[in-house]
Amino acid sequence: MKKILMLTTGGTIASVPSEEGLRPLGSEEILAHIGGAYAGCELTAREILTLDSSNIQPEEWKLIAAEIYAGFDGYDGIVVTHGTDTMAYTASMTSFMLQNPPVPVVFTGSQLPISHPLTDAVSNLRSAFAMACSGAAGVFIAFDRKIMLGCRGVKVRTVGFDAFESVNLPPVGVISSRGLELRHSLIPAPHGSPTLDTDIDTRVFLLKLTPGTDPEIIDLLIERGYHGIVIEAFGSGGMQFVRRDFTEKLGRAADAGVPVVLCSQCLYEASDPTIYQVGMRALEKGVIQGLDVTSEAAVTKLMWILARASDPAEVRRMFTTPIAGEINPQ
Amino acid sequence: MKKILMLTTGGTIASVPSEEGLRPLGSEEILAHIGGAYAGCELTAREILTLDSSNIQPEEWKLIAAEIYAGFDGYDGIVVTHGTDTMAYTASMTSFMLQNPPVPVVFTGSQLPISHPLTDAVSNLRSAFAMACSGAAGVFIAFDRKIMLGCRGVKVRTVGFDAFESVNLPPVGVISSRGLELRHSLIPAPHGSPTLDTDIDTRVFLLKLTPGTDPEIIDLLIERGYHGIVIEAFGSGGMQFVRRDFTEKLGRAADAGVPVVLCSQCLYEASDPTIYQVGMRALEKGVIQGLDVTSEAAVTKLMWILARASDPAEVRRMFTTPIAGEINPQ
Repeated sequence: MKKILMLTTGGTIASVPSEEGLRPLGSEEILAHIGGAYAGCELTAREILTLDSSNIQPEEWKLIAAEIYAGFDGYDGIVVTHGTDTMAYTASMTSFMLQNPPVPVVFTGSQLPISHPLTDAVSNLRSAFAMACSGAAGVFIAFDRKIMLGCRGVKVRTVGFDAFESVNLPPVGVISSRGLELRHSLIPAPHGSPTLDTDIDTRVFLLKLTPGTDPEIIDLLIERGYHGIVIEAFGSGGMQFVRRDFTEKLGRAADAGVPVVLCSQCLYEASDPTIYQVGMRALEKGVIQGLDVTSEAAVTKLMWILARASDPAEVRRMFTTPIAGEINPQ
Repeated sequence: MKKILMLTTGGTIASVPSEEGLRPLGSEEILAHIGGAYAGCELTAREILTLDSSNIQPEEWKLIAAEIYAGFDGYDGIVVTHGTDTMAYTASMTSFMLQNPPVPVVFTGSQLPISHPLTDAVSNLRSAFAMACSGAAGVFIAFDRKIMLGCRGVKVRTVGFDAFESVNLPPVGVISSRGLELRHSLIPAPHGSPTLDTDIDTRVFLLKLTPGTDPEIIDLLIERGYHGIVIEAFGSGGMQFVRRDFTEKLGRAADAGVPVVLCSQCLYEASDPTIYQVGMRALEKGVIQGLDVTSEAAVTKLMWILARASDPAEVRRMFTTPIAGEINPQ
């Protein structure tokens, strides 16, 4: 029988209404709620955090990655329960901090507490356990009977049970009455041995443009010692350069040695700044093309890279080289 | 026969490949491309701008709104062709600058130039003309055979023809073999006479949080004289308060008289900060609930309100009162 380690971090899934609002549930209590719900494996549960995921930040990312890594010794799969709000960020960062995992690492959570009569927690946990037992190594999110790469998940709905979408890559697995069906061709093959590398540079800013955004923000970020910027530009990668000249500021960032990654504020499909004049101007200033990466993966990947490289060409090479399926070079 | 005014502003739809890259097309050339394509109305075309929509900014919003307003005299409907990249912002702002339009005002554009053999421009223009002839007054976006409220449209795809979605409200119209079918109950009734009010305060910043975002950004924005902030928080409205305490900064913004609107970075469904402890803390600091508004509508609406009100209670009242269907008070 497969041995599965369940690490709990808090979040809606691990909460129960009490007179003082939602009270956190320990991992043993979560196990009690699912009872014999997943007979296919031998479950061990350990509580490592009890946080609303709005408070799961870079410091917790390191802890979670290290706990998962420790679990590779002795377990066939690892499930991490996590609040939904920042799960896409944690799962993305885990994909970079913890490369080539030898077993499945599956994040899950729920939109309603596990104690709620209509909860989605039990279904999501069952999906996560099934994936954890599958032998398909990688970092994943299991939600609403879909399995997606951890670095492709985005929370797109605030209340619906179909809260997560796998962006720019189909789900790698689906649960139906035929059970868990995996599309193995969509799961990246390991590119080496398992590694744990939790050093990151958190001085990365995510800048979502609007038509009125003043380019001075780039100066401010450079002055304040930010080391990297991810821009959510318009459409395929457009930004204003009449009156409010962002392309000139990109040149300033390049001169200051601050890498800028250009993504799209469109949820779906890749950015491609080569199509229009304005995008070409940005590329001339040295921006890194975000291609089809999600914003969550772009921010976490840039943080991870900046702890390892400072040469602009090397940062670009690392960013555009896939680590865990987060980017498809065009 | 209905008289329709078509105002052209540039964008992909109004471009044609040339040896020096994409060359802008004038409005007469656009008309030539559609030829007798829409027999149902008498078309008059006027070029008011020739800009890639990445360069359509607050100054252009005012011009576009004024030109539309001028067209109310003598036309039964107005079509505005516009680049797709920032069309959702322009259509949202038009909904606020230009309230209770007496005729349909329909924004459209295309993902491929009108001269391209596979262009979506002709289909989108036909949809827009049909809507402009419908007599249903309001500000709309016509795209991929769907009609949506201008303040509900979001560009969600960089290349697909189904580039726009109507967020948190179904499309108000669909084109099928039955023609244009409108759901009139979804189109807000006018709440007064037509008005043109183009004063706005552009010092509004859109802040999309990540788990590593340093709350000092709020101080920076206040110091630099921003007058309003729209926060795209996590999930239903969460933000970090352990170590990186955004709730304390919200108090600082309130003390400085800088209104903060709390939205979600989830594309779909409403934010509701009342659910969790962290959201309740934010509300105690005086943030305005963005409810189910899109980020595009939140930013433009706050810009419009700030030119008219500074008292926090009045800003809140105006923000949470629907103008053109952009928000559904819960």
